[in-house]
Amino acid sequence: MFHKILIANRGEIAVRIIRACKEMGIRSVAVYSEADKDAMHTRLADESICIGPAPSTLSYLNIAAIMAAAELTDAEAIHPGYGFLAENASFAEIVSESGLVWIGPTPESMRIMGDKVAAKQKMDEANVPLVPGSDGAVTTVDEAKAIAKAAGFPVIVKASAGGGGRGMKVVHSEASLPNAFSMCQSEAGAAFGDDTVFIEKYLEEPRHIEVQVLGDKHGNIVHLFERECSMQRNNQKVLEEAPSPFVDDETRAKICAAGVAAARAVDYVGAGTIEFLMNPDKSFYFIEMNTRIQVEHPVTEWITGVDLIEWQIRVASGEQLAFTQDDIKMKGHAIECRINAEHPFKFTPSPGTVQLYHAPGGRSVRVDSFLYTGYSIPPYYDSMIAKIITHARDRQKCIRRMQRAMDELVVLGVTTNQELHQRLLANPGFQSADFNIHFLERWLNQMHL
Amino acid sequence: MFHKILIANRGEIAVRIIRACKEMGIRSVAVYSEADKDAMHTRLADESICIGPAPSTLSYLNIAAIMAAAELTDAEAIHPGYGFLAENASFAEIVSESGLVWIGPTPESMRIMGDKVAAKQKMDEANVPLVPGSDGAVTTVDEAKAIAKAAGFPVIVKASAGGGGRGMKVVHSEASLPNAFSMCQSEAGAAFGDDTVFIEKYLEEPRHIEVQVLGDKHGNIVHLFERECSMQRNNQKVLEEAPSPFVDDETRAKICAAGVAAARAVDYVGAGTIEFLMNPDKSFYFIEMNTRIQVEHPVTEWITGVDLIEWQIRVASGEQLAFTQDDIKMKGHAIECRINAEHPFKFTPSPGTVQLYHAPGGRSVRVDSFLYTGYSIPPYYDSMIAKIITHARDRQKCIRRMQRAMDELVVLGVTTNQELHQRLLANPGFQSADFNIHFLERWLNQMHL
Repeated sequence: MFHKILIANRGEIAVRIIRACKEMGIRSVAVYSEADKDAMHTRLADESICIGPAPSTLSYLNIAAIMAAAELTDAEAIHPGYGFLAENASFAEIVSESGLVWIGPTPESMRIMGDKVAAKQKMDEANVPLVPGSDGAVTTVDEAKAIAKAAGFPVIVKASAGGGGRGMKVVHSEASLPNAFSMCQSEAGAAFGDDTVFIEKYLEEPRHIEVQVLGDKHGNIVHLFERECSMQRNNQKVLEEAPSPFVDDETRAKICAAGVAAARAVDYVGAGTIEFLMNPDKSFYFIEMNTRIQVEHPVTEWITGVDLIEWQIRVASGEQLAFTQDDIKMKGHAIECRINAEHPFKFTPSPGTVQLYHAPGGRSVRVDSFLYTGYSIPPYYDSMIAKIITHARDRQKCIRRMQRAMDELVVLGVTTNQELHQRLLANPGFQSADFNIHFLERWLNQMHL
Repeated sequence: MFHKILIANRGEIAVRIIRACKEMGIRSVAVYSEADKDAMHTRLADESICIGPAPSTLSYLNIAAIMAAAELTDAEAIHPGYGFLAENASFAEIVSESGLVWIGPTPESMRIMGDKVAAKQKMDEANVPLVPGSDGAVTTVDEAKAIAKAAGFPVIVKASAGGGGRGMKVVHSEASLPNAFSMCQSEAGAAFGDDTVFIEKYLEEPRHIEVQVLGDKHGNIVHLFERECSMQRNNQKVLEEAPSPFVDDETRAKICAAGVAAARAVDYVGAGTIEFLMNPDKSFYFIEMNTRIQVEHPVTEWITGVDLIEWQIRVASGEQLAFTQDDIKMKGHAIECRINAEHPFKFTPSPGTVQLYHAPGGRSVRVDSFLYTGYSIPPYYDSMIAKIITHARDRQKCIRRMQRAMDELVVLGVTTNQELHQRLLANPGFQSADFNIHFLERWLNQMHL
C-alpha cells in the first residue's frame, strides 16, 4: 500500500480523500491555490503545497506545478478527485510516466470514453444499448426518413458541430421531417460552417440513471447498482438517490449488466460510472461514461457498504477486489442533497464569509463538506459547499430523515439552496418518485420566482 | 401511532428522541428548565414548555410540572430518555394512570429490576448466572468459610448497609478469612449501625459486558447482541463498543440468551439493558438491568441497523416487533466516545460558553450532540456534551475512523476530554482490546497527571 498520496483537487472531494487516507494510515498531501490557503483540505492534510494563484489554469489545472509538488513531497500516487484534471488522459499519462501511480483508469480507457464517437462504437461492439439513429452523417431526406422510421418518432436532427442545445430540431412525424431536415442542414452550415447532421431517436421524458462500477488490475469488474440522478437543473444534478425508485429488479439486472459490459469493453480499472437515459417503458440507452469518482458516490457507499474512495486507492495499488458481484448487496435507500452557495431559485452564486456553520447530526446522516464557521468561500470555484446524505430502510423514511437533517442545517453569511431542497423534498412529485429529467426545471418555471 | 410525544428530558437524548419523532411524523413536545431556554432540544421540538427553575428537582424531576405540560399540550405519550425520571416506577405509573402512554417497561418490571434483592431472586429463578456467594446475611465464621470455599477465593465480604466501596474487604485465602470477616462485621456495626454482612466471589479483572434487549407488548423479546463497556472511570463509561472484541461466538450466544431470559423473567417491554461482569475465562454474572434506553445505544443501532428509539415508540404504541431474532444480524464494528465538558485528566467540570463548535463529518461518522456555536453549557447538569460514534467493517478500521473524527472535532470556549480520547484511542492496550474495568483508572494513575 502507498505511504503517501497527493490529492490534485480541492473542496469536499479533497477532504473526502484525505479522510480516506487517514483511515487507511496513508499520509496525504494537499495542493492548494493562493485563494485556498485557509481551506479545509489545506488544513486537514498532513502536508500542503501551494501550487499557484486562484484561477484554476494557474493552479488546479497546472500540471507542472502539481507534478513538482508530488516530487517535492515524495508522494507515490495522485488522486485527481472529480473535475479539474480527473478526466485528462494526458495528465494520467504524465503521472504514470513519472513513476507515480495514477489513482484511476488507464489513459486508454479515459481516451476512448472521452471521445463520443469512439465510445459509441465500443459500446455498440459490447452490445450496450445506444440511442437508435444514424451511425454517422445523414445526407439525404430519403436516408433521414428511413432512419427516423427505424428509430421511431419523435426523432432529433442534430448538427454534428452543434452542442449545448444549438443546432437541434425535434421532429414528431414523417410529414414534418423533410422541412426540418433541410432547415437543420442549412442552419448548421450557416452557424458552424459545417452542414453535417445526424439523426437520433428523441427521448421525451427520460430519467437519468447511472451505474457505478469498480474494476481492479486483475480483470475483475463489479457493479454497485444504480443511482437515480434525474433531479437536474441546467444539466447539473441537484439531488441523487440509490437505488432508483423507478427501476425494478429485472431492469436493474439488465442495466447493471450493461454497465459492467461497458466497463469491460475498455478494460476498466478503478471507480467509474456509466450514464444512461431510461424511457418510461424502462428501455435504456448509454449516454457516456465518467471515468472518475462522482459527486454522488456516497449514496452508493451507503446502500452497498463499500467505501469507493478506499477501493479506488486499493485497486490502484494493485490489490484485487476483496468481494465478488454476489457479495455486494443493496440495503435500504440513500439520498444526497447538494448544498450550493447560490440563490435557491435564481441560482446566482453567493460567495462570501460563512458567519455560522452548523451541520445536521444524528442517526444515518452523513455530511461531506469543507465549510467551517469563519471560512470565506472564494468566488473562483464550483458553488457546491456541502453534501448532506441520509440513509434509511426505505425511501419514505429516508426522505423524512433528509427533511429533518435539512431543517437542522445552518449556514449563515452566504445564501444557499437549502430552501430549494426543503421545497423539493416536500413536493408530491418527488415524494411519489414520479419525475424525469425535466421535472425540476418545469417545476421551477411554474413557480414564477 | 401517536400524534404527539412529550420528552421528559434534556441534552443529547432529548434531541435524539425529537429527531426520531420528526422522522416518524410525530409531533414532539420539549420540556425545559429556565436554564435550558436556549437549549437545542427546546429549539428543535415542535412545542416547548418551561417546567421550572434550573435545579432538576424543580424541573426535570418535577413530576407535577411535567404532567401539567403533557396535559397542556395534549401529548399522548411520554418518553423519559435516560437519567432523571427514566427509572422511576411511580412516575411510569402516574403517566399510565393519567391515560397517557409510558414509553418504557411496566412499573412492575421497573420495580423488580430496581430492587437488588428482588432482581437477584428473579434472575436466579430464570437461571441467569449470579455472582456466587451467600443468598443473604452471613453470621458465623464457619458459614463464611463454607460459602467462600464453594464460591472460590478471592471473595469479598460486604456490609449490607455499605455502598460505594465502603464496608468491603477482599479476602484471598481461607487463612485470612476469620479476621477479615470479624473486622468487616464490627466496622459495619460501627459505621452503619448494622453489622449484617454477606459474601460474594470477588471478580478481579472483569469486563463490563451488557446485552441490549427489545420487547413488545405481545410477548416477543429479542436481543441485539452485546456492548463492551469496560472503559470506565469512577463507574462512568467513557468509550463503548459493539460487539465486544473479547466475546467469541459461543460466549455471545450464551450471554445474549441470558439477557433474553432476564428480560423474559420480568415480561419486559421496550428497550432495556442487562449488565454483566465477565471473567477472563469468559464466565459471566448478572449485575443489574437498566430499564431504559442507554447513552451507548448508537453502537448497537449501527451494528444491527435497528433504530432503538423508533422501536421504543413503536412497541409502546402497541406494535409488534417487525423482526425476529434470526432477522437481526451483526455487521461490522462500532465505537462511541463520550465527549464531556471537563478537564481530560483532572475531570473538573467546565461549563461555559461554546465559542466555536465544529462537528466531525464524512463517511460512517455519527454525531449526537446538543452543542452549537454560542451555546452556554449550564453548570447544573451532566457534563456530557456530545457523542461521536463511528462504524467500520472491522475494529481496527473503526478505531482509525474514530481517530480522524476526533481530530476533526473542534470545541472552543470550554475544556473537553477530547485529548483523553485521542490518547486512549492510540493506547496499545486499547488497540489490542486487552483491558478490563480497571484499565482506564490504572492508566490514568500511571500518567501522574
